[in-house]
Amino acid sequence: MQDKIINSAKNPIIAEVIALQKKKSTRNEKGLFVVEGLRAVKEVCEDDVRYFIATNNICKADFTTNTQWIEVSDEVFKTISDTKTPQGILAVVQQKNFTLQNLTQAQNSFYLVLENIQDPGNLGTVIRTAYSFGVDAIFITKGSADIYSPKVVRSTMGALWNTKIISNLEISEIFDWLNQHNISTYATDLTNSNPIYDVDFTEKVALIIGNEANGISQETRDLATFKVKIPMVGGESLNASIATGICLYEIMKQRAKIL
Amino acid sequence: MQDKIINSAKNPIIAEVIALQKKKSTRNEKGLFVVEGLRAVKEVCEDDVRYFIATNNICKADFTTNTQWIEVSDEVFKTISDTKTPQGILAVVQQKNFTLQNLTQAQNSFYLVLENIQDPGNLGTVIRTAYSFGVDAIFITKGSADIYSPKVVRSTMGALWNTKIISNLEISEIFDWLNQHNISTYATDLTNSNPIYDVDFTEKVALIIGNEANGISQETRDLATFKVKIPMVGGESLNASIATGICLYEIMKQRAKIL
Repeated sequence: MQDKIINSAKNPIIAEVIALQKKKSTRNEKGLFVVEGLRAVKEVCEDDVRYFIATNNICKADFTTNTQWIEVSDEVFKTISDTKTPQGILAVVQQKNFTLQNLTQAQNSFYLVLENIQDPGNLGTVIRTAYSFGVDAIFITKGSADIYSPKVVRSTMGALWNTKIISNLEISEIFDWLNQHNISTYATDLTNSNPIYDVDFTEKVALIIGNEANGISQETRDLATFKVKIPMVGGESLNASIATGICLYEIMKQRAKIL
Repeated sequence: MQDKIINSAKNPIIAEVIALQKKKSTRNEKGLFVVEGLRAVKEVCEDDVRYFIATNNICKADFTTNTQWIEVSDEVFKTISDTKTPQGILAVVQQKNFTLQNLTQAQNSFYLVLENIQDPGNLGTVIRTAYSFGVDAIFITKGSADIYSPKVVRSTMGALWNTKIISNLEISEIFDWLNQHNISTYATDLTNSNPIYDVDFTEKVALIIGNEANGISQETRDLATFKVKIPMVGGESLNASIATGICLYEIMKQRAKIL
């Protein structure tokens, strides 16, 4: 495909990228999102890329064989970048469309449910950690941060396109699906709950993490099979992404030990 | 002590607070730092507060009995606040001066060593987590982020003034002190290391965490008694604060189980 050079920040493609960076509604409507930076762009599967935008100090041959390559000036790149020190390359990428209906169940599955996680940095870090510990899929409720927002994309460090994520779900449909598939649910909660190291996670598991400030919803509290907590010595709180990381580690460890 | 009202952003006290918010050198020189926000200010011990600055919608009686209280306008408060949506209260607080020399050793001690952690958000989260898991003291090397920078203070969520922290240390003096006190060192590293769940952490422990991008230094690699890692299934990386949280959890758990 022929390369294109854009010198004006008013070009419609530039306007599209700016809208994709800033607006969830545009990302949803077009089914696209932006991946920025040398390392991240290199890791995206080229088949999913609609077009690349780069400054002239980026070597095209490192990134694409035949996807549209658009060259822009440093000034134009600054207007479309979400970072303070742009590396001069981004890709506009198609969103994945996993659904509960087409999700094939893994053997002895390991799922993560995120209920109303608000902070994009936390959400991105949790996705990155889930990928590292071999979670089969992540379910995210309506009202959570958008997985395709620039800050989430950045903090997943590539885990976003290596993990099955289904977002925009009602908590009730998640429970319905998990129950249908005989998957026990373990919700993190501080009251009436057992220390995670005393709980057996070796069978099918869905771990449920609640909102940063308010924890899990009453509905989840009522519906979850088990309630679990991370015992603490001092203080009373852990950051939500730290708590999730610790629970995922404990689950992974118990399962690795029986392999 | 009599209250004071300041209406000008050019007042020397206002200039001092701005410098304390922005400059590590001013914080070091004066031995002071700034704590901002209703909840955080309430948690600071009043004996450590030099003065409070607040807008007139904050109730003085909730915070102080006889420490200097300075009232400023909303406009002046905005110039001294480090947050986007200021709550209208901050405290200028004395730094603690723990040293290796005056550190009393805890029974079966549990220490955390942070080598060259650069990101203030990571550093703050790690301090918060260490407090939750009962770490006796944290040692921080020269060149790390400043524990008194506004972002670190904020993300520790109060753990900063509940934890013994000694910063600005050479890694060699840390090892000297730990060796003198017969404390085994466990450095996180990916090569030639054992899974943390196969390591015995029930005796005196110093866990060493390295830089976000480069891990531990060669010096630490050579000097550490043991090298440990968190096994991962997919991907190849965890955020530094998540990795620290998981190691601290594993150590706490092993020690809680023998109590």
